Amino acid sequence: MRISFCCSDTKPQPWVDGLKAAFPDADVTLWAAGAAPADYAVVWAPPQQFFDEQKQLKGIFNIGAGVDALMKLRLPAGVPVVRLDDAGMSAQMAEYVCHAVIRHFRELDAYEADMAGGKWSYRKPRLRTDFPIGVMGLGVLGERVSRALAQFDFPVNGWSRSAKTIEGVRCYSGDAGGQGFQDFLAASRILVCLLPLTPDTMGIMNLDTLSRLQPGGYVINVARGSHLVDGDLITLIDNGHLAGATLDVFRTEPLPSDHPFWKHPRITITPHTSARTLREESIAQIAGKIRSLAGGAPISTLAGVVDPKKGY
Amino acid sequence: MRISFCCSDTKPQPWVDGLKAAFPDADVTLWAAGAAPADYAVVWAPPQQFFDEQKQLKGIFNIGAGVDALMKLRLPAGVPVVRLDDAGMSAQMAEYVCHAVIRHFRELDAYEADMAGGKWSYRKPRLRTDFPIGVMGLGVLGERVSRALAQFDFPVNGWSRSAKTIEGVRCYSGDAGGQGFQDFLAASRILVCLLPLTPDTMGIMNLDTLSRLQPGGYVINVARGSHLVDGDLITLIDNGHLAGATLDVFRTEPLPSDHPFWKHPRITITPHTSARTLREESIAQIAGKIRSLAGGAPISTLAGVVDPKKGY
Repeated sequence: MRISFCCSDTKPQPWVDGLKAAFPDADVTLWAAGAAPADYAVVWAPPQQFFDEQKQLKGIFNIGAGVDALMKLRLPAGVPVVRLDDAGMSAQMAEYVCHAVIRHFRELDAYEADMAGGKWSYRKPRLRTDFPIGVMGLGVLGERVSRALAQFDFPVNGWSRSAKTIEGVRCYSGDAGGQGFQDFLAASRILVCLLPLTPDTMGIMNLDTLSRLQPGGYVINVARGSHLVDGDLITLIDNGHLAGATLDVFRTEPLPSDHPFWKHPRITITPHTSARTLREESIAQIAGKIRSLAGGAPISTLAGVVDPKKGY
Repeated sequence: MRISFCCSDTKPQPWVDGLKAAFPDADVTLWAAGAAPADYAVVWAPPQQFFDEQKQLKGIFNIGAGVDALMKLRLPAGVPVVRLDDAGMSAQMAEYVCHAVIRHFRELDAYEADMAGGKWSYRKPRLRTDFPIGVMGLGVLGERVSRALAQFDFPVNGWSRSAKTIEGVRCYSGDAGGQGFQDFLAASRILVCLLPLTPDTMGIMNLDTLSRLQPGGYVINVARGSHLVDGDLITLIDNGHLAGATLDVFRTEPLPSDHPFWKHPRITITPHTSARTLREESIAQIAGKIRSLAGGAPISTLAGVVDPKKGY
């Protein structure tokens, strides 16, 4: 068996070593132009040339949950694409989002600023019922995040294209722009984006949709930068409809040094660190799936197989 | 029925009005020296004179979870003391502690400082298994906090005087200083204090006990300032054994302006705001208990009755 590794923005050797340890009898190599044809590919944002040369692949494994970068390429026809299915990411997402929600709801940044200034003072406690949270995207990550938020007794709404049922979460469904989505926005004050990036969801957080959030709204984006129309967010914060935002992802990363998000007093930014790919967990998961496929299991039995029509 | 309200550091009128609304036929008054004898008292850190005059009380209701201030007074013999039992506090505690744990574990303060300085950079993800958390005190608040932490997949240890069983939490028990307590400390890196303050637990976080935490330890105190020996914490942070602390409670509150906690770069402080008494929830709970007692229910059927021997 030959496994080819081709990932940009990733130190390759530990991955190649890890895959070799998982498959001692296989030929695991770091891809270079003109390399021999492989059976399976482990990729992150590879160049188009990789797929132009490797049309014989039996499976493409993406070392992330989002496959939007991959979907922009011409992929060899009929080769299944498999994304990471949790692999330690859902707990990280739950941590990041709960931290951002609690920090905003409990005004902990303001408290810390007070204390840094030597000031001991109380704020009136806010009511949890005044801060309903809406989670967009109810896949493995969105469901985990919704459940984590609900256990702090926040009212939690969820929205996904297909109908879901999650205990403790009021689930809305249907297309972006449909009544279910409008109702979901109107019922929410803190909006969390965990959607896959597809043509349907690009720019889904814009002047129209963010205006529908309850007054004093707050935006947490941990999906992709292109879900958000940056200028619309700033307009709505500056005109007072939104209270602020916590953003981990951006249209261009690293965020360009002249972007207004860097200095905006009501926007907290982090460098795309909300849910990092954990190498050991990911290799273990991908190795398990390769073994299943190599052993003859049908692709439909694997978790995380991308539907090319949906794009996620 | 006569209900007397006597609380320091609390705006009294909304409480008196709330109790009147709950008991339209009762005489609810703000206590003053020489007031007529009442049936029930609703108190927070009242003066000794209050109890010296009101020996006929049938029940004393504390509008907080901790009764250490009350236990320092001479109380009328045989009158039951009842503390708040959750009343919205456990969710707040879970929020505050989870926020502090996640912020420390995920280095979010460092990330935000980087971003504030215009720097986009990654830190190596830390392993959750390297950050076992130990929760001291497994009452209503400690149990809720332990469960909340466990759902982020942290290893969670709990310690309480009497043995407890909590799903997902490794429970230790026995006296402070006993083997169970030593084992609990050695198994923990982040220490969360949710103990009642009693003669046995005063100063329980000191040079000896904090030294037993795993290297790079972290302290979160949301119970009472006197649980911690301030200077010992600073010594262990400054010598590198501990990585830092988040403190919400202090031996003197407000924290005196010359206290070293104000300026220590590795100590985050907040002004005793981790779990505020929520008036509506508290009045509803106390009113329910007064109705039970007035209706002839035995005191043992009430939640939150203080055992004078234990002091909590």
